[in-house]
Amino acid sequence: MGKNWKDEISTPALVLHYDLMQKNIETMAKFAKENNVSLRPHVKTHKCPIIGKKQLEAGANGICVARVGEAEIFAQNGFNDILIANQVIDLSQIKRLVELNKKSLIRVCVDSEKNILDLNQAASKKDVKLEVLIEVDVGLGRNGVKPGEPALHLANFIKKQPNLKLVGLQGYEGHLTSVLDPELREKQTNECMKRLVNTRNILNNNGFNMDYLTASNTVTYKFSAKYDGITELQTGTYIFNDEHYYRVSPEFNIAVTVLGTVTNIPGNRYYTIDAGLKAATNDNGNPIFKNYPKCKIRVMTEEHSIFRASPKDKFEIGQKLELYPSHICTTVNLYDFFTVVKDGKIIAKWDILARGKNY
Amino acid sequence: MGKNWKDEISTPALVLHYDLMQKNIETMAKFAKENNVSLRPHVKTHKCPIIGKKQLEAGANGICVARVGEAEIFAQNGFNDILIANQVIDLSQIKRLVELNKKSLIRVCVDSEKNILDLNQAASKKDVKLEVLIEVDVGLGRNGVKPGEPALHLANFIKKQPNLKLVGLQGYEGHLTSVLDPELREKQTNECMKRLVNTRNILNNNGFNMDYLTASNTVTYKFSAKYDGITELQTGTYIFNDEHYYRVSPEFNIAVTVLGTVTNIPGNRYYTIDAGLKAATNDNGNPIFKNYPKCKIRVMTEEHSIFRASPKDKFEIGQKLELYPSHICTTVNLYDFFTVVKDGKIIAKWDILARGKNY
Repeated sequence: MGKNWKDEISTPALVLHYDLMQKNIETMAKFAKENNVSLRPHVKTHKCPIIGKKQLEAGANGICVARVGEAEIFAQNGFNDILIANQVIDLSQIKRLVELNKKSLIRVCVDSEKNILDLNQAASKKDVKLEVLIEVDVGLGRNGVKPGEPALHLANFIKKQPNLKLVGLQGYEGHLTSVLDPELREKQTNECMKRLVNTRNILNNNGFNMDYLTASNTVTYKFSAKYDGITELQTGTYIFNDEHYYRVSPEFNIAVTVLGTVTNIPGNRYYTIDAGLKAATNDNGNPIFKNYPKCKIRVMTEEHSIFRASPKDKFEIGQKLELYPSHICTTVNLYDFFTVVKDGKIIAKWDILARGKNY
Repeated sequence: MGKNWKDEISTPALVLHYDLMQKNIETMAKFAKENNVSLRPHVKTHKCPIIGKKQLEAGANGICVARVGEAEIFAQNGFNDILIANQVIDLSQIKRLVELNKKSLIRVCVDSEKNILDLNQAASKKDVKLEVLIEVDVGLGRNGVKPGEPALHLANFIKKQPNLKLVGLQGYEGHLTSVLDPELREKQTNECMKRLVNTRNILNNNGFNMDYLTASNTVTYKFSAKYDGITELQTGTYIFNDEHYYRVSPEFNIAVTVLGTVTNIPGNRYYTIDAGLKAATNDNGNPIFKNYPKCKIRVMTEEHSIFRASPKDKFEIGQKLELYPSHICTTVNLYDFFTVVKDGKIIAKWDILARGKNY
């Protein structure tokens, strides 16, 4: 018999189960097509151009990134329709953004006058026309201008800048990811989308012609896609899912696991595994075990986790176990590469080229 | 007037204040010398060969690493006395460890028979004699063999392996980092060291000749260094300190900060900064603000944190602020490089070469 694929991997390792990821890509692409909305996946989750290309091949019309550094990596790797779904405030980054815009279509969100002036000035210096979206704060209270009149004010302010062009509005209902009840989540998503669409209406009643409204995430997309006026989904986590989002969106497989090795048995039913905080983040709670739901991590330290097993589960030192991360985006960001597994074999090593490129 | 150094840095960034780090290096080196113990800094905190060399120059007699991947990076960069302060269980890693041992002195900790057999077999294949330490569980309950007879049993087992040589004992009192009361911490440190020294005595009464006892961390070193029989400190965090350890060991400056930019003012006294979970970990609590102790982070998301300021503190969009990480080791592990600042100027960019090399 051949060796188990786990034996070939030094742990801790980030394991990508190819077929499960492909199904996730297809599920979301099909949904977007059937609901007649564009799909612009947020690549902050995987930070990997190889995977971004698979999303485009399945029908996505571009990508979202969080930062200029990520935009640079993806542009270098052939992506030419990139939305920075955040503000770029810092002057050194604005300079890089405008430079990049000369090669690829890079759009950015704005929410303050000073930033709009800075962007216009930098674009003017390089003689480019920079396309921007207004981010509307639909309820998260983090970034964005308030809906309605404040957004209209900003739109008029952008209009006066010769080197900027307003092309759309962005909303992000990120505060709803913890709303477990589906009816309540639908109701609250609709309220958020209403703020975005109403803001568009106010703009259009004042001489604008906005039809590009981008929003959503992996746990609200079903509702926002059906809200009249929303034209684009910018979901990210669906590509891999994780222990946290799976509770709400089980239609997506958990396609990435952290592989660890049991290193010690410090007490009755207690085990030490070599996957700690440098292998899986715990900002959304501790990871859980694939195949062993009754095992519970009790302590995570830098290099190790200590877990307690049920009386039935017996493990040996050297045994390799898979964990489901609780927050896949921050976990992927710890690694340089995915080990890709298909049909019980390791088929590739994919570099996470934009890991750490958040500046 | 010249520009402020902060203006030259794209955020979020990891800023190393050179002089503060140098003072930390000197403080610990002086303490070790005065107390007649060796110093073997744990480089898992900084993962940067340039900094490791400064520790050696100040008198350290070698380094500790957590993983084979780190040992490889430091060995490639000229380090030739490396202790892997953990077990190496996985066969693929044992192979790499033995390979590395042919070039540099790489010692490793052991705590189980199966692992000892695996190490001996791999060393035998390459015809090398591998030096090992027994890790004794002095109270942490994570790795290590129980003190006393179980350790003696393991020592005798090692003796039978022709390609292994037992050279010392390791203890790690990591569970005491959260004991804030200094008297209680001293008492508990002494109890841990007693377990280690007693184990050595049992071994020596049975024909062994152990005098190499390595232990300690940045909050217990003062006590363990004075405990008769302890010959080496393996402190790591002192190099930079952090918000968490500073409460207990304020003799070390907080030498590394995370620089962020204010991006939005979502409400009265509320601000958004572009340093989130991909810029600073929160596994030991949220980071705190340098110079603004009354600012409190309320929410950390991937790319942002939202904080509340005191009524007196006013910030502008675009303003750059420094944060003290709550856990420096996991925070450094997020970055590719330090931006090094001295006398108000950026003097270097130092690569964190062993970042993510935990496999």
